[in-house]
Amino acid sequence: MLSLLDLRARIAAGTLTPAGAIDLCREAIANRDPAIGAFVAIDQNPVIPQDGPLAGIAVGIKDIIDTATLPTQMGAAIYEGWQPRADAAIVSRLKERGAVALAKTTTTAFASSDPTTTRNPHDPGHTPGGSSAGSAAAVGAGMLPLALGTQTAGSVIRPASFCGCAAIKPSFRLIPTVGVKTWSWALDTVGLFAASVPDLAYALAAITGRDGIEGEETSSPRIAVVRQDFAGAPEAAADAALATARAAAEKAGAQVFDLSLPQELVTAWERHGALQDFEARQALGFEVTHHRDALPPEVRRNLEAGDAVAPATYDDARRHAHRARRVLKDLFGGFDAILTFSAPGPAPATLVSTGNPRFNRLWTLMGVPCVNVPVPGDGLPVGVQVVGRFGGDGQALAVARLIEGALRG
Amino acid sequence: MLSLLDLRARIAAGTLTPAGAIDLCREAIANRDPAIGAFVAIDQNPVIPQDGPLAGIAVGIKDIIDTATLPTQMGAAIYEGWQPRADAAIVSRLKERGAVALAKTTTTAFASSDPTTTRNPHDPGHTPGGSSAGSAAAVGAGMLPLALGTQTAGSVIRPASFCGCAAIKPSFRLIPTVGVKTWSWALDTVGLFAASVPDLAYALAAITGRDGIEGEETSSPRIAVVRQDFAGAPEAAADAALATARAAAEKAGAQVFDLSLPQELVTAWERHGALQDFEARQALGFEVTHHRDALPPEVRRNLEAGDAVAPATYDDARRHAHRARRVLKDLFGGFDAILTFSAPGPAPATLVSTGNPRFNRLWTLMGVPCVNVPVPGDGLPVGVQVVGRFGGDGQALAVARLIEGALRG
Repeated sequence: MLSLLDLRARIAAGTLTPAGAIDLCREAIANRDPAIGAFVAIDQNPVIPQDGPLAGIAVGIKDIIDTATLPTQMGAAIYEGWQPRADAAIVSRLKERGAVALAKTTTTAFASSDPTTTRNPHDPGHTPGGSSAGSAAAVGAGMLPLALGTQTAGSVIRPASFCGCAAIKPSFRLIPTVGVKTWSWALDTVGLFAASVPDLAYALAAITGRDGIEGEETSSPRIAVVRQDFAGAPEAAADAALATARAAAEKAGAQVFDLSLPQELVTAWERHGALQDFEARQALGFEVTHHRDALPPEVRRNLEAGDAVAPATYDDARRHAHRARRVLKDLFGGFDAILTFSAPGPAPATLVSTGNPRFNRLWTLMGVPCVNVPVPGDGLPVGVQVVGRFGGDGQALAVARLIEGALRG
Repeated sequence: MLSLLDLRARIAAGTLTPAGAIDLCREAIANRDPAIGAFVAIDQNPVIPQDGPLAGIAVGIKDIIDTATLPTQMGAAIYEGWQPRADAAIVSRLKERGAVALAKTTTTAFASSDPTTTRNPHDPGHTPGGSSAGSAAAVGAGMLPLALGTQTAGSVIRPASFCGCAAIKPSFRLIPTVGVKTWSWALDTVGLFAASVPDLAYALAAITGRDGIEGEETSSPRIAVVRQDFAGAPEAAADAALATARAAAEKAGAQVFDLSLPQELVTAWERHGALQDFEARQALGFEVTHHRDALPPEVRRNLEAGDAVAPATYDDARRHAHRARRVLKDLFGGFDAILTFSAPGPAPATLVSTGNPRFNRLWTLMGVPCVNVPVPGDGLPVGVQVVGRFGGDGQALAVARLIEGALRG
């Protein structure tokens, strides 16, 4: 993979120019993308800032995120050729910090579950996951050092796990969603993909202007291992990855113990879907009215499910989520991070499904930061998920870095 | 003013067609708008549904709200002629319910404070208020039975008070903001203007599919009168309006008492500006980067203020707001509604200011429903504000209806 911090170090040392760093990405894309298909548009003549903490960093932008100089097609035929007027807030911010929005990456239609044509960089017969398929594949394949995704259920952490890269779904609204196509306003969260946890921490600190995110240190964190039994059993490979990560954390000095989540969190998890579907039906009202028959099947199914959610059911879901957030906040008094599954297993051997977000839904609903840490092993990539307290993105990244370092040995 | 319920009754009785109801609005616009200037675009050939709870209702859409068949120009030269791809979620929903999005109404640039050219329908030398200037003026002048505004500080309740119409800023996110230009994602709230409180209740119930909003009844509500001394003193006319409304409520059977808000709410009120400015600076990142010199002065001033807000100051503001919401929720155990000022006084005699939102900021930050009730009197309109608990939009409207009825009584 292309390390953001490595590129930045070479630029700082004067051995690489920002334009040279962008060229490295172009070459990698030329070599690898024909077999993967991670991109829907590439800017052939971008402005390349010389300064800023992200100068020389080419970023992949999920194609539900508005860009003023490249089309934004939502992974949906009905938005073919659509050119927004303005960059999304996160794209503007990246450019202010020196980055180059080099390419738009594939997304499932409206970031739902109809697969893209993107292939897993580790095996072309396997899904890269979704909905942020292209961004995960682009970083996992070493074509870009940084990419943007969004997560409403499991659309950042799951594809990162499948594609073998690091990723963070930050605390809710730490990165603004202004200019990002809405599916669920209470859930949609912009996230980052990169080669390693320190790369993520550097990028998130630079984007948000919060230096503390990168600087946070941890030595012997208290880590609660949560298996999320309510979400079903994992596959053997995911189970093994969790055990490996747990052992690595203990070896690195962490205090690790098992935790079974209280019922309030299970109840909230069960209501994620109703909340999401109810909001999606309203958010995509125009598409339902004018383009119902042109919508792909999973989108249509989701929107029809939303039609069936009564306002009272939605309100009930919101109340349970609110209560669960307070319970989780209190729980975090007893530990520094949760360690759990990123996905049920490695990327499924199919291109007609993007995999299952069942181990991700709860944390998106809670609005808490989640980091995928790849676990080295044989076979296709599998990651583990480090979950932090709301607003504790720096601490979640510090714990993830500790585990990543211990795993890499 | 044009009463939505009256139009609907005539349509139900078969004495008016939906197209005829739209024509009534066109005639009123032709007669009155030349002296007011509430519109930036009018659909000359709209689809007019025959069915639905809002069939025959022409709606004014504030021009920061996306429409697929009319330009959306944000009150800003840099968006001249801009044509969005899709309708905003609220516009789609209105159309699904049978309404006609007849016209785009003037807005201050990006819903900030640079005045529009719209004049107050009650005196052309006075401001209609802002930022939802055209929507308030259009309803206040009897040109439309319903219009959409947005409020981030006081942009719905204040112009309604100045223009003499009823209005509701509902609970946060009861109406989705998808497709509405963002200024502050934690504050921006879509609201409604109409001729009376029952008109608002009918429209909000129809839009949200929550029949209970219209059906709610109240007989002897407990009403806390809050003067918001922390926000400064009102003018004599606003003070008199509050006294009149209080007496009317008591006469109608309400139990009314004075309440001084606890310090947590004052502290939150003081932090509204920092929260708003920090988010606006990010939300308008594209405009700052590419069009800084073309931005009007108040927008530029707000965005520069946002540049000066540190992330820690923003986080502190959010924490105080969160705490204050819980304090307010507990307070609402002791009463059914708060009665307070809608604005410092009648519309100022100027076209270079939109007036002051100091009596509105706290309630927007709290996310609670607010209803403007016009108070009949000599001179320019003055309203009072009924504030309900979060999610209690029906109850707030019921209390407002009781007061409105007693005032008209």
